Amino acid sequence: MSDTRREIDTLIEALARLPGLGPRSARRAVLYLLQRRGTLMLPLAQAMEAVAQTARDCLVCGNISTDDVCPICANEARATGELCVVEDVADLWAMERAGVFRGRYHVLGGTLSALDAVGPEELRIPQLIRRIADEGVREIILALNATVNGQTTAHYIADALSGSGVAVTTLAQGVPIGGELDYLDDGTISAALRSRRSF
Amino acid sequence: MSDTRREIDTLIEALARLPGLGPRSARRAVLYLLQRRGTLMLPLAQAMEAVAQTARDCLVCGNISTDDVCPICANEARATGELCVVEDVADLWAMERAGVFRGRYHVLGGTLSALDAVGPEELRIPQLIRRIADEGVREIILALNATVNGQTTAHYIADALSGSGVAVTTLAQGVPIGGELDYLDDGTISAALRSRRSF
Ligand SMILES: [Zn+2]
Ligand SMILES: [Zn+2]
Repeated sequence: MSDTRREIDTLIEALARLPGLGPRSARRAVLYLLQRRGTLMLPLAQAMEAVAQTARDCLVCGNISTDDVCPICANEARATGELCVVEDVADLWAMERAGVFRGRYHVLGGTLSALDAVGPEELRIPQLIRRIADEGVREIILALNATVNGQTTAHYIADALSGSGVAVTTLAQGVPIGGELDYLDDGTISAALRSRRSF
Repeated sequence: MSDTRREIDTLIEALARLPGLGPRSARRAVLYLLQRRGTLMLPLAQAMEAVAQTARDCLVCGNISTDDVCPICANEARATGELCVVEDVADLWAMERAGVFRGRYHVLGGTLSALDAVGPEELRIPQLIRRIADEGVREIILALNATVNGQTTAHYIADALSGSGVAVTTLAQGVPIGGELDYLDDGTISAALRSRRSF
């Protein structure tokens, strides 16, 4: 085996570690790239390298950008007194795509988990408590996933803030737009029923 | 939107163009990489750049390697007089993974297609004819896909070589190892029946 062949195999193995890709699709992706070396593979590699070298975690909220303070935290117009707490950057991106929230974020970096020994210190929860005082936050919107760990974390944060005068809210649970009841789990249906509103 | 955000979006769009990935899985993959910037994203980018810059098409067979003549063509032990004709490099890789063919390859780079105006000149078929004389080839093994265009191409090559004294063979068609009849298409079943052998 030549050196390239080894390099190509290393590349396939690295790509196969990405979520949604396995060895087979990684191989197909690398071959597709190899057949477009100048037009796709090289620009993609260089773009990836540039991002890897310049991206950093926002010191305030945990978002990923090129600056020590991300554009959302740097934008004074977003100092609305509302802080949306999310598990990870993917959730922040999802909220931003929806384009309806005008405040700022706080990325926890995970959820509390007794099993994985993840406590509040690992989750940027102390930073959250500090921001509430520093930034004059009036409302914390808990946008955590509807998993057991997500909900445990939500309750932990709500408890920690009880008596602080900050309103703690959470995203409404219910039937997704276009969702068919037949495909929804029981928990979603019962949550939607409990939160029913007049038509 | 900041520059990084634009760079990240460019990266997601480039990854989304790869086979097997869509916008959603590309986004998840990029986020996964962003959270492992030093340990995975940067090495992956650098490995990809190195391969993009050093890989080239073998001048003899069309395989991809770092040399003008690939390791298989450069290996005298593989001058067996057998040439395996494949559509693309992915098929060459698949044959090599099987590890049973000891001869050399010829990568056509596609199949004849009237619809896409792909003729023999576009497919390295003239190079194939030349190699047969130059390399003293005794047998051409057509390992083309069992598609209409693949079989058209196989017939074209067989016709072009009739009377040349070179044996032209093709891979056996039949039930794949572990294949369940129930999941096979009719063409495969009838091919397997026609080629049945005594048990
Ligand atoms: Zn920030
Ligand atoms: Zn070669």
